[in-house]
Amino acid sequence: MQFSDGPATDEGWETISRDIHFADGHLKVATEEVLSPECERSHRWTVVQRKRAVVIAPLTVDARLVLIRQERVPIRAAIWEVPAGQIDASADAEIDEIAAVALRELREETGYQLATGGELLPLGDFFSSPGFTDERGFCFLARHVELSGDGHNHQESESILDCRTFTGAELKAMILRNDIRDANTLSICAKLLARGMLAFSGSGNGSAEFF
Amino acid sequence: MQFSDGPATDEGWETISRDIHFADGHLKVATEEVLSPECERSHRWTVVQRKRAVVIAPLTVDARLVLIRQERVPIRAAIWEVPAGQIDASADAEIDEIAAVALRELREETGYQLATGGELLPLGDFFSSPGFTDERGFCFLARHVELSGDGHNHQESESILDCRTFTGAELKAMILRNDIRDANTLSICAKLLARGMLAFSGSGNGSAEFF
Repeated sequence: MQFSDGPATDEGWETISRDIHFADGHLKVATEEVLSPECERSHRWTVVQRKRAVVIAPLTVDARLVLIRQERVPIRAAIWEVPAGQIDASADAEIDEIAAVALRELREETGYQLATGGELLPLGDFFSSPGFTDERGFCFLARHVELSGDGHNHQESESILDCRTFTGAELKAMILRNDIRDANTLSICAKLLARGMLAFSGSGNGSAEFF
Repeated sequence: MQFSDGPATDEGWETISRDIHFADGHLKVATEEVLSPECERSHRWTVVQRKRAVVIAPLTVDARLVLIRQERVPIRAAIWEVPAGQIDASADAEIDEIAAVALRELREETGYQLATGGELLPLGDFFSSPGFTDERGFCFLARHVELSGDGHNHQESESILDCRTFTGAELKAMILRNDIRDANTLSICAKLLARGMLAFSGSGNGSAEFF
């Protein structure tokens, strides 16, 4: 399994200075002065550094997507999302190590695991808001998944309130009603749609299906 | 024009305390202690507050999407993205005020403006990474757009390197190659696909089209 190196290779970029304003176990805020490949003068930019993340679309054998409903302090709301979690491994972790994190987060947050013969397919990665943070999500389709005997293992701080499965048509309707509100879920849907692993047909009430 | 109030209504949430660690004109970092509707005990959570944003999918009359290529300091890369920008207006700004910001950002970043008879259609909103930030993007389809006589007005700090139009098929191919790397562009694609305003047919090299 391979992820594209794509951008974020640092080639031609030079960090002149970095002033760290705040750091804890989850984020680091720094004002950096950098030279870029395309500009003659240096930029000063305040950046929030975050661990990389895994983002998982878990699909059951009957073509339903597993979503969790999670309380999110920053937005003062509980929303339906695909499971996701931070990667503690070092930045040069191999893709197999990242895939292992994805399977562990899937199990912990949803209680689902790969079924016999199931596989974890990499879907590339994306940056959640590259204007201010380096946070980068590595996306996977877990096809197919089944409930494990042990159930989920939510940590209380994660505040996962519910876990349910949704058909492609239900997912499409939720996007149309603005009930899918996070970039992880919308972005992984775009990746599945481009690959033909999810299809939305026609406008409004047209059909929708996972493949 | 209306956006769903959806979540993020604060109902049942109470902020007990807020320790501000860092603040500048672009972001504020605070550790908050909050009570949520579903948990008996309070949470402590470190939150990065950001201005809300507009995210625009500009579609030309010949069904091509306008993208910009922008250097992004946090990820040390230049990537193709839909135009976007921060909303300076207060949090209770009316949707018409937000729409005006969208049209201004479109013009500044791309040099395109609504064509005669063109309209700005709201596509709902999303949170870029609700586990750590309240950043919220309000999405619009600008259909149709044309080059304005005046051209674009990039601020140098925005580091916009290029601006081009892409067919639906080119966009799909870019997603498949992992060349669309930001949550704004992927999320607005998912919203357009759910509405039938963009269609991806079949897997791999199947067709793709804007409507």
